[in-house]
Amino acid sequence: MGETVSSIILQEAAGAKLASTELATATAEQRNNALIAMADALEAAADEIEAENAKDLAYAKEQVEQGRIKEALYGRLKFDKKKIADAAEGIRQVARLADPLGVCTLARELDQGLNLFRISCPLGLVAVIFESRPDAFPQIVSLSIKSGNAILLKGGKEAENSNRIIYKVLKSALTKSGLPESAVVLLETREDVNQMLKADEFVDLVIPRGSNDLVRFVQDNTRIPVLGHADGVCHIYIDDAADEDKALKIVLDAKTQYPSACNSVETLLIHKEKLESFLPRITSELQKSKVEVRLDESCMAAVNASKFEIDRSLLKLATSDDWTTEYCELVISIKAVESLSEAIQHINRFGSAHTESIITEDKAKFETFFQKVNSAGVFWNASTRFADGFRYGFGAEVGISTARMHPRGPVGLEGLVTYKYKIEGAGHIVGDYAGPNARSFTHRDL
Amino acid sequence: MGETVSSIILQEAAGAKLASTELATATAEQRNNALIAMADALEAAADEIEAENAKDLAYAKEQVEQGRIKEALYGRLKFDKKKIADAAEGIRQVARLADPLGVCTLARELDQGLNLFRISCPLGLVAVIFESRPDAFPQIVSLSIKSGNAILLKGGKEAENSNRIIYKVLKSALTKSGLPESAVVLLETREDVNQMLKADEFVDLVIPRGSNDLVRFVQDNTRIPVLGHADGVCHIYIDDAADEDKALKIVLDAKTQYPSACNSVETLLIHKEKLESFLPRITSELQKSKVEVRLDESCMAAVNASKFEIDRSLLKLATSDDWTTEYCELVISIKAVESLSEAIQHINRFGSAHTESIITEDKAKFETFFQKVNSAGVFWNASTRFADGFRYGFGAEVGISTARMHPRGPVGLEGLVTYKYKIEGAGHIVGDYAGPNARSFTHRDL
Repeated sequence: MGETVSSIILQEAAGAKLASTELATATAEQRNNALIAMADALEAAADEIEAENAKDLAYAKEQVEQGRIKEALYGRLKFDKKKIADAAEGIRQVARLADPLGVCTLARELDQGLNLFRISCPLGLVAVIFESRPDAFPQIVSLSIKSGNAILLKGGKEAENSNRIIYKVLKSALTKSGLPESAVVLLETREDVNQMLKADEFVDLVIPRGSNDLVRFVQDNTRIPVLGHADGVCHIYIDDAADEDKALKIVLDAKTQYPSACNSVETLLIHKEKLESFLPRITSELQKSKVEVRLDESCMAAVNASKFEIDRSLLKLATSDDWTTEYCELVISIKAVESLSEAIQHINRFGSAHTESIITEDKAKFETFFQKVNSAGVFWNASTRFADGFRYGFGAEVGISTARMHPRGPVGLEGLVTYKYKIEGAGHIVGDYAGPNARSFTHRDL
Repeated sequence: MGETVSSIILQEAAGAKLASTELATATAEQRNNALIAMADALEAAADEIEAENAKDLAYAKEQVEQGRIKEALYGRLKFDKKKIADAAEGIRQVARLADPLGVCTLARELDQGLNLFRISCPLGLVAVIFESRPDAFPQIVSLSIKSGNAILLKGGKEAENSNRIIYKVLKSALTKSGLPESAVVLLETREDVNQMLKADEFVDLVIPRGSNDLVRFVQDNTRIPVLGHADGVCHIYIDDAADEDKALKIVLDAKTQYPSACNSVETLLIHKEKLESFLPRITSELQKSKVEVRLDESCMAAVNASKFEIDRSLLKLATSDDWTTEYCELVISIKAVESLSEAIQHINRFGSAHTESIITEDKAKFETFFQKVNSAGVFWNASTRFADGFRYGFGAEVGISTARMHPRGPVGLEGLVTYKYKIEGAGHIVGDYAGPNARSFTHRDL
């Protein structure tokens, strides 16, 4: 049985890899037309999709009632006509984005008649494991087809019926557009995923979108490159030269606007000069927004000494675990620092290299912060919540990478392509550039 | 004992990582001055270096005499005044290259007063395990300092004395230039390497330069991203529209100019139309250059039927193993194909994604070959031996990557940097872009 599953997944991966070569030679017009056909097909099948989604919702409702899943998850699972229309519009937006393929990023004459070019091209076959939201499915498929990549997808179990119908609809549209049917494959089970992770011969990149546990499991069980962020422990540093109103507005947005997002702030670093005046004010405002505040000892002392309206019974003393915790809910930790330099050290030591923001009116301090902080996003007087493919203008994203290598940060179309070096010669050989009468390279950028 | 070694290496890695933050803020002038100081110091210490190198050479000579190492290795180990001067000149060339840091590759207004930039920055701490040539040492150090990266180096045991003195000289020059001393660390033993591979908290990239076994060992024993090529099985496809003189010249160059290089050709694919006329001629010429020729059955039949001057006793029948073997010596395999398409399929199936060349006078065929072949280098009428950082005009290279992700192909300065996203705002929050009166993003490229 295991053998059979294995060979089916391997065969599908091999087929998808072959299809990727066809996709790589499809024109931008062919790929865009396929996207538009997918968008139209989704809208045309809205009733059918809603009906299948209703099955997932009914099952999820039972689970919520039995306390097995959270109410919030239920909301994310919903894929009604409004969300289907949004998804279709999202695909059309991706179709309108510039073609990421065939972009020349280096053109150089090496010698007379010998030219070097670096040209963007698809990665090949990408596998994406995504969370419960069914709207992630069309988004991911559109990004991969647009970037010329074949794709293996595994959605959440909770959205099983929704994903199956979306898969059927998108695949049919793809095939009618003349692109290879085997370029998109839906994986159904956890065992399918385990087999896929072994297919390093065919799969060029795995993107696990989900819990830290999922990301670590994938990293530890495959030789395929993994794009993912293990944590989103984002910081805001409130400098002594901070504008307090900006700081307050930004901290509240970064913590409360969508607390479960990976770009939400978890730890606030505050310059000691701001302890007496500003810390009690921001603590009070955070409490008004129902945020649990965990303070280090200096901060606790400062808050206790103040006359601000603060419910002291709700304050907690932060422990060292707090500096590395992604709360994903309305909790924030606050630590006092002596200097910009201490803030930078704390972030580089305890952070997850996702996104950090400094609040200061002193641009030179921002420049130091930008140069020394090792994160994918380093912001000045702006909410960490801006770290997102849509907000960056990438059209959409397949995920956010906290890796050091490319691609890092929000990964859109550019993150799904790589490049090849092209040399056009006229019979050139290396032997002519060696020895006593060696020719020289011109190395002239074209 | 193991514990002690472990903590020393971890401490050195931690120290180098801290130093990398200093290097990241050093100006281009500071980094270039450090390079020039290193070049000068190498030349000034030429006598001392030659004396230490002589110790390695004496030991290697014994080994050659006892048949334990090859003569060729002995030659590569030599680091005399001429090579020291070349190495110094190489460092000065790297100093003259454009600064890879602080390059802005994206500038976009997200909204009024809210701007996004993508800026190149160092990777952080890079570890390089390199082969016996001592001249690789200054090259690698100069590339990493120029790109703002701290570095851990492990050289070959055979060059132990040479590497120690080079390390001493380079490090002293670095420190005198005001850059942090702990930014360059020499690892001495295999156990040091094992410990380093566990330091994924500090090391951002490992580059193993050496045997396939080394690369695989590193890949299987670390969570640090690995840049390396496992094999260099390069192909030349001789199309039916090939110019035979060009084909002959290029194949001889690609096979014989430096057979142990990873960009040498291993397998020739030849269109069936060329079997009768051209295959015997090229076989004869390869034999004249002392190349052992392994033919598939069709090719063998064609050669046997010809009247060319060929020593048939030296011909071998190729087996399936030949299609995946990197010979690293004067051996070549030749396979007949029915079409361009079959050639592409063979390359994508059996190749190592390093570098392939098509010989044809038909540009359209090259374009198809370029689009469908999944390798880092895809050439037209040029020797595969051009796949090299120096020849590409990158100044130097730390290695060649056959990975699909960035960086691939010859890796020079650009391959040693990554990027950060910078947002400059004025108190901007994401909440203003959601809900009923949501602001819109302008997404205007600057």
